[in-house]
Amino acid sequence: MAQQGVTPQSEDFSRWYTDVVQKADLADYSPVRGCMIIKPYGYELWEAVRDGLDWRFKETGHKNAYFPLFIPESFLKKEAEHVEGFAPELAVVTIGGGKELEEPLVVRPTSETIIGWAFQKWIQSHRDLPLLINQWANVVRWELRTRLFLRTMEFLWQEGHTAHATHEDALAETMRMLGVYADFAINDAAIPVIQGRKSQQERFAGALNSYSIEAMMRDGKALQAGTSHDLGQNFAKAFDIQFTDESNELQYCWTTSWGVSTRMVGAIVMTHGDEMGLRLPPKVAPVQVVIVPIFRKDAEQGPVMDTVNRIFADLKAAGIRVHVDNRDTMSPGFKFNDWEMRGVPLRMEIGPKDVEKNSVALARRDVPGKAGKEFVSQDGIVETVLDRLDDIQASLLEQATEYRNSHLHEVSSSYADFIDVINGGEWALSWFCGGAACEAKVKEDTAAVSRNFPLEQPHPGETGKCIICGGAAHEMAYFAKAY
Amino acid sequence: MAQQGVTPQSEDFSRWYTDVVQKADLADYSPVRGCMIIKPYGYELWEAVRDGLDWRFKETGHKNAYFPLFIPESFLKKEAEHVEGFAPELAVVTIGGGKELEEPLVVRPTSETIIGWAFQKWIQSHRDLPLLINQWANVVRWELRTRLFLRTMEFLWQEGHTAHATHEDALAETMRMLGVYADFAINDAAIPVIQGRKSQQERFAGALNSYSIEAMMRDGKALQAGTSHDLGQNFAKAFDIQFTDESNELQYCWTTSWGVSTRMVGAIVMTHGDEMGLRLPPKVAPVQVVIVPIFRKDAEQGPVMDTVNRIFADLKAAGIRVHVDNRDTMSPGFKFNDWEMRGVPLRMEIGPKDVEKNSVALARRDVPGKAGKEFVSQDGIVETVLDRLDDIQASLLEQATEYRNSHLHEVSSSYADFIDVINGGEWALSWFCGGAACEAKVKEDTAAVSRNFPLEQPHPGETGKCIICGGAAHEMAYFAKAY
Repeated sequence: MAQQGVTPQSEDFSRWYTDVVQKADLADYSPVRGCMIIKPYGYELWEAVRDGLDWRFKETGHKNAYFPLFIPESFLKKEAEHVEGFAPELAVVTIGGGKELEEPLVVRPTSETIIGWAFQKWIQSHRDLPLLINQWANVVRWELRTRLFLRTMEFLWQEGHTAHATHEDALAETMRMLGVYADFAINDAAIPVIQGRKSQQERFAGALNSYSIEAMMRDGKALQAGTSHDLGQNFAKAFDIQFTDESNELQYCWTTSWGVSTRMVGAIVMTHGDEMGLRLPPKVAPVQVVIVPIFRKDAEQGPVMDTVNRIFADLKAAGIRVHVDNRDTMSPGFKFNDWEMRGVPLRMEIGPKDVEKNSVALARRDVPGKAGKEFVSQDGIVETVLDRLDDIQASLLEQATEYRNSHLHEVSSSYADFIDVINGGEWALSWFCGGAACEAKVKEDTAAVSRNFPLEQPHPGETGKCIICGGAAHEMAYFAKAY
Repeated sequence: MAQQGVTPQSEDFSRWYTDVVQKADLADYSPVRGCMIIKPYGYELWEAVRDGLDWRFKETGHKNAYFPLFIPESFLKKEAEHVEGFAPELAVVTIGGGKELEEPLVVRPTSETIIGWAFQKWIQSHRDLPLLINQWANVVRWELRTRLFLRTMEFLWQEGHTAHATHEDALAETMRMLGVYADFAINDAAIPVIQGRKSQQERFAGALNSYSIEAMMRDGKALQAGTSHDLGQNFAKAFDIQFTDESNELQYCWTTSWGVSTRMVGAIVMTHGDEMGLRLPPKVAPVQVVIVPIFRKDAEQGPVMDTVNRIFADLKAAGIRVHVDNRDTMSPGFKFNDWEMRGVPLRMEIGPKDVEKNSVALARRDVPGKAGKEFVSQDGIVETVLDRLDDIQASLLEQATEYRNSHLHEVSSSYADFIDVINGGEWALSWFCGGAACEAKVKEDTAAVSRNFPLEQPHPGETGKCIICGGAAHEMAYFAKAY
């Protein structure tokens, strides 16, 4: 059964997404075309993403800093590929304090250039390296076709920027942060992402190589949920980021950058959501347990609320994010629907019979209907709840992994089969030479491009024939339609 | 003795500030005039401010959300005073995606307008009230004369926006948040701020009344460290924020807004800093304890570092922010200076004799020279350190309060005396009628205006004669030169 006002996934996944994002109060459209308003519930989800990444960044030695929103237009032009990639997407400030500016200021679409300028000032010697910086910020890319969280003109993100003495160190950092992203996605967001290298066509404008984590949404489409870039010496040369090495020789640094954005919130929605709305992994859920008190007569209210308040206090003291829904104008049924829509992992119902029997009813969001409901003792309720939350976290990852695995297909038979898989809305894993012409051909035939060459190759050490041109291929790549 | 490269406070306080902010690695100038780069150490200090405020906001029932950076130009014009106040300070985007925009977009200088638009959509009934929202964001105000943290074109801040059913509720919220700011300033930042109401001349553009916390810097100047505004129904009427009350009548809401910015970092620097650099209150210090290992011979290194590492682990496990300075190219003396510059509250020195005697040396940043140094046992070191940190927190507040009290003067004698106090760089507390002409006269004579009418009046219930015009005055106000 679907929720009122929500298009069923099976009917139109894209409308289901938009409906759920709005009905669950995650975000809303704004009066500025392409910009969104992140509502409190959506922002709490983003805070969970932010916190889950931030401690991992700090644990791996990074420090946060903040760089200007505005970038002089001339900066962007210093790295040829970079400006070409971003020029069509820029918002430009031409008037400041009532006067026309001599040099227009670009609202940052990403900060490699202005941070490059700072690194050039900050780095003198090999002793200053590695320099490991992260920034939490808003960025703007002029987009015409926008979707809440997935593609908005302004979005929130973090962008890591690091400088190193050798290419080896920079590449190790690039891979380390890709791993940090995968660790967060898999263990906190319960999204079984695939780590890999983007093709040369699909890399970041100005990078030697880009790496991504790719997630499968419940319509089979891919979503790039995070990227990590080996920038080589491209930005170091454009911004003159040099250091004196141990032999006192002047060298260019090797830099990296990596980012995850509010898009991750969209990925969580589309990985786990079902016809009833969101399903949130406990580790990132703003509310992990909602308690719905149930009573009909006034005489029942006192004892029920005493139990509710006691259990609420116990759960809260244990660090569980718990909420009591005591709205007095809504029926329990309405509340159940509402919290299912919002994806709260565990619902606890407490009524007069529970008070009498020292029990509570628990309903799991990840297991629909009666199968997900049980009566448990109030004794040891904290342990029971923690146990169920762990179980739900694991179950959502397992469900998503099963879904993903059943929609991945290794295709070596023919180009026609390969196209069929992609057009059927699934992912094809095939030998790919990496060539631009081949990728363009697939795009023409399916509107899809390669997602990445997965780090975990199914046939390591072997080679094959490119599924598109038949030429020599050293790696297999995923191809799929994508957000 | 002053630090190398730092102008003494007594010589030029303003240059001292700029020197210290840069030498202590808090912030740096950027290639975009008026914008600053917040360096990691400065950003950690800002994170402490942010975290200290954020939990207080959440505890008082507020939720974070996020609204667009860009505001349609027409929105700003809906509240007449508001547009007049902000029009000269706007940065305007006129080009997006390579095309001239039909309606220019203003980079938010503050978000009353766009949040007003959202509130109008979100609020229907009295059941939706109060609506208590906060936003952490960057804002832009075109400033020509900028100073790091104190006045920058772009700055980071939080802006609270709330809507209520009655003026009484809105005013209670305005005062509650002023109190939250004062609580943070006094108890975390050790700044003895004065809470009060701004004059009608000095209120926020579009508010009925503005309230502020005012801090005294160590050059005697005032700094407005936070503001809370009673917006009446001005924005509700401009943006049609209405609700149906319990009698089903349509009513305009009463709204508030309140903000604290990266300016608070400047306030911390200028309240506590001395000739040796920063002095940071332990509650907001990024590093609370720095351990400097001391050894000359290689044979000494092992035992010293064993003790250092053990104590480091113990302090860290107790939640103390501790750092070991093991840079091998710098002398202990250089390190002492460096950490004094950075304002670390407590320095711990551990050498071979300490290993032998089971002791460590502690040096307090708030007590200069030998008086601030002591040898303590390694036994119970966590408790000793926690005790000293508490003591330093209290001592910095006490020192700042004494300084402030000795530079406040109640002046009722004559306008000439009043002007002398202000021109002498101190604060005058005098009867003030609140009139625009009087305030303009003071400004002409001293370049100062009123800071606020303190909530704690020295002569409650009494009235007096305005120190400027001699007319009836119901309250006393502070006047001082300000940042």
